[in-house]
Amino acid sequence: MSKQGITSRDENYSEWYNELVLRAELADHSDVRGCMVIRPNGYAIWELMQRGLDDMFKASGHVNAYFPLFIPESYMKKEAEHVEGFAPQCAVVTHGGGKKLEEPLYIRPTSETVIWNSYKKWIQSYRDLPLLINQWANVVRWEMRTRLFLRTMEFLWQEGHTAHATFEDAEQESLTILEVYRRFAEEWMAVPVITGIKTESEKFAGADHTYCIEAMTQDLRCIQAGTSHHLGQNFAKAFDVTFQSQEGKLEYVYATSWGVSTRLIGTLIMAHSDDKGLVAPPRLAGVQVVIVPMGREEEVRALTVAAAEKLATELRTQNYGGMPLRVRVDKREKESPGFKLTDWELKGACLRVELGPKDLESQSIVLARRDTGDKTTVPMAAAVPTIVGELEAMQKALFEKALELRNKSLHRVDTWDEFTEIFKGEGGAGFVLAHWDGTAETEAAISEKTKATIRCIPLKPFAPEDTQPGKCVYTGNPSKGRVVFAKAY
Amino acid sequence: MSKQGITSRDENYSEWYNELVLRAELADHSDVRGCMVIRPNGYAIWELMQRGLDDMFKASGHVNAYFPLFIPESYMKKEAEHVEGFAPQCAVVTHGGGKKLEEPLYIRPTSETVIWNSYKKWIQSYRDLPLLINQWANVVRWEMRTRLFLRTMEFLWQEGHTAHATFEDAEQESLTILEVYRRFAEEWMAVPVITGIKTESEKFAGADHTYCIEAMTQDLRCIQAGTSHHLGQNFAKAFDVTFQSQEGKLEYVYATSWGVSTRLIGTLIMAHSDDKGLVAPPRLAGVQVVIVPMGREEEVRALTVAAAEKLATELRTQNYGGMPLRVRVDKREKESPGFKLTDWELKGACLRVELGPKDLESQSIVLARRDTGDKTTVPMAAAVPTIVGELEAMQKALFEKALELRNKSLHRVDTWDEFTEIFKGEGGAGFVLAHWDGTAETEAAISEKTKATIRCIPLKPFAPEDTQPGKCVYTGNPSKGRVVFAKAY
Repeated sequence: MSKQGITSRDENYSEWYNELVLRAELADHSDVRGCMVIRPNGYAIWELMQRGLDDMFKASGHVNAYFPLFIPESYMKKEAEHVEGFAPQCAVVTHGGGKKLEEPLYIRPTSETVIWNSYKKWIQSYRDLPLLINQWANVVRWEMRTRLFLRTMEFLWQEGHTAHATFEDAEQESLTILEVYRRFAEEWMAVPVITGIKTESEKFAGADHTYCIEAMTQDLRCIQAGTSHHLGQNFAKAFDVTFQSQEGKLEYVYATSWGVSTRLIGTLIMAHSDDKGLVAPPRLAGVQVVIVPMGREEEVRALTVAAAEKLATELRTQNYGGMPLRVRVDKREKESPGFKLTDWELKGACLRVELGPKDLESQSIVLARRDTGDKTTVPMAAAVPTIVGELEAMQKALFEKALELRNKSLHRVDTWDEFTEIFKGEGGAGFVLAHWDGTAETEAAISEKTKATIRCIPLKPFAPEDTQPGKCVYTGNPSKGRVVFAKAY
Repeated sequence: MSKQGITSRDENYSEWYNELVLRAELADHSDVRGCMVIRPNGYAIWELMQRGLDDMFKASGHVNAYFPLFIPESYMKKEAEHVEGFAPQCAVVTHGGGKKLEEPLYIRPTSETVIWNSYKKWIQSYRDLPLLINQWANVVRWEMRTRLFLRTMEFLWQEGHTAHATFEDAEQESLTILEVYRRFAEEWMAVPVITGIKTESEKFAGADHTYCIEAMTQDLRCIQAGTSHHLGQNFAKAFDVTFQSQEGKLEYVYATSWGVSTRLIGTLIMAHSDDKGLVAPPRLAGVQVVIVPMGREEEVRALTVAAAEKLATELRTQNYGGMPLRVRVDKREKESPGFKLTDWELKGACLRVELGPKDLESQSIVLARRDTGDKTTVPMAAAVPTIVGELEAMQKALFEKALELRNKSLHRVDTWDEFTEIFKGEGGAGFVLAHWDGTAETEAAISEKTKATIRCIPLKPFAPEDTQPGKCVYTGNPSKGRVVFAKAY
């Protein structure tokens, strides 16, 4: 157990995660089963994620809107696969204003049905297309086994819902968004992801096909971090949404939907954090730099506090990742410097600056980096550029470290013996690239026997050989190429 | 009826409002009774409001968090006044995951109960105070008579929930936020508001007292635009939230809560718009400048489009209200310039720029201002500063026009005959400053007889005489000063 009082990852990875989230005050359990409270430290990360993603959505022509929380039961039933997939996991409102409702209202588990009911009114002609709308909202899914951030009954997300004139336009949109998600994961979260396509069994209920990004945790499991669905004409047909084409014909509209959620926060924590607490990538850290002024005597303290405030003010004029630096001066008087430094390690400040009377004398600061633990003395005159440089270096280092682990934990497996051997333990076993015969039966059998599931069929092969035909690792039947197996959160 | 096909305000103010909201594509009805769809044009205003308010909350030390949508029935019942006020208007989830729940879950109508249940865990010592948390969320209240933006069953809002060591600290907080709300209404929305305190009958269910801002519409009714509640120790006692004071005593925590909602969008529309459509204050307009390039022949059009794009690019480098200018070039090919200009009047672009072949020749643009309708020819070289200047002028002019109407519609009334006369019609009658004997009975009797209610007891008198004692306009009993009566939305 660390100074921060957290179970170590080696001891029990799952406990480590739960304790870290609670102790770093990122989230808290609520009395409502499976619902969490996102505390300010965790919500700060979500706000930064929202800002980053929202800017990318807008840059690619999307606008935001808001659709109702409630879905009439009759809407849910209009798309056959969709109702089968989602209705059983819905929360249902049966009473309102003290009376029993004539028609029960489902709380949205996702908003395709309520949105396509509006699109029917808004789309008449090809001139109304494409319609590129996103919403930031809460959704509810009645999950049985929940885990803070990673799987909660209520969660926050964004859901994009677009309408297009052709299959090709919708395909382009779903791939554009997949690329936005990949870039966000890798460039903001510093989490390398595999982009791929889901199998028929794993695709979204109501989709033609589903693209995804899949990330790896430090315990070598997989997290589905975002999905982008090509819905074909399924929802247009279910809600009778047609448009007059440029040639004057009446045609059904093509659709996409796509989303990422507060699950990304869990993904970020699992990818980078250590036994001392949260390690957050600088672009998404709520506090990038904390300055701890030292000195017990009041007069000395006044000087170090003043110097800390001066440095903070200078730093806040700097931009990093398109936003002013997020700097905190920790002036708490009842806590010791040692407590504060440990506390900020727990809470994931990227850089900790110590500023004591001796530092003032020598006109320098002591700088500690959260990910490496490296401590360096830096002349005050060089403090600002050094700090900005260290943030950039840390963002890069986190990605590279995670990429190294991911690449190291990628295995090509060709026999069933080897396959069962690799997945026999309780924990994760990395990503296994293996051949599969393409049938849902085989997929289910493998999952049942090993708890490993097909995460995706990668869009870009890791090596050219991966797209060569082969023999299914389970049945020996012909396979078109390797797919990614892993145990998933 | 205007060119835009909207009923005029004189004809039917209520119809005018509804038609404007629908035709300008700000919001749409949904099939779920009382729930609205906020369309991109309306949501753009909400996003700007969020940005402005959120910056002000953060500048005053607040942080954001997120609490669950669901409130167990037992929580709702802990604060006696609160449950009486809110439980009857709640939506209730009785089933989840296909099963009947053991305890029904209320959808939050406001989050005091669920938040104070968490605060109980988070607050132990005076060091944990003040706790200054806000959340952006959706809430549901089972309203019987709804109106787009102004009163909907589900709405979006922010709700601040703070905890303090003393009554005085909580009082200061509730007044600080009231001032944030006043500034936001007046400086961003260009809507003058009265700040005041609610009567006992009108205060928040569970509050010690409630402060409010009250705005006036063009049909001389009143809109409650925001409230800030001092909750005393009521919720701390209901949820048993105590802290150890600096002197080592165990004391109950003091609380505030405060909120503004998507109702502000309705307030903004009602304050400024006209028979042609939306008039939005520049600081909150989704599109501040629209440029319409003209010319029928392809070659000419290519030139005007290029000039429009060039001007747009220059304008986007300008800041107004702390954000880059929001500029749109309307390149729709299937629509005539006349249609476009009318369409942008409807949708509330603050400035419309016409750019035709003749303008290119003379190196000038034609600029039309949305609020005044004034059209001026401006040399291209002066376009950027003129546009920024006109936006500033429009923001100011909207506030002054609204203030003039408000001041003109403020009446001091001293007799019951005059009082009933002024409120006898169906419509609004402005703000009436009259004496009231301070009893709930009189307040109820006046409301029943005239439909006018006490909006607030103003914090700042309009004139010194308003705080002088007098005789109640209804009973003749002694009064401490004038209060504000109006018909309200």
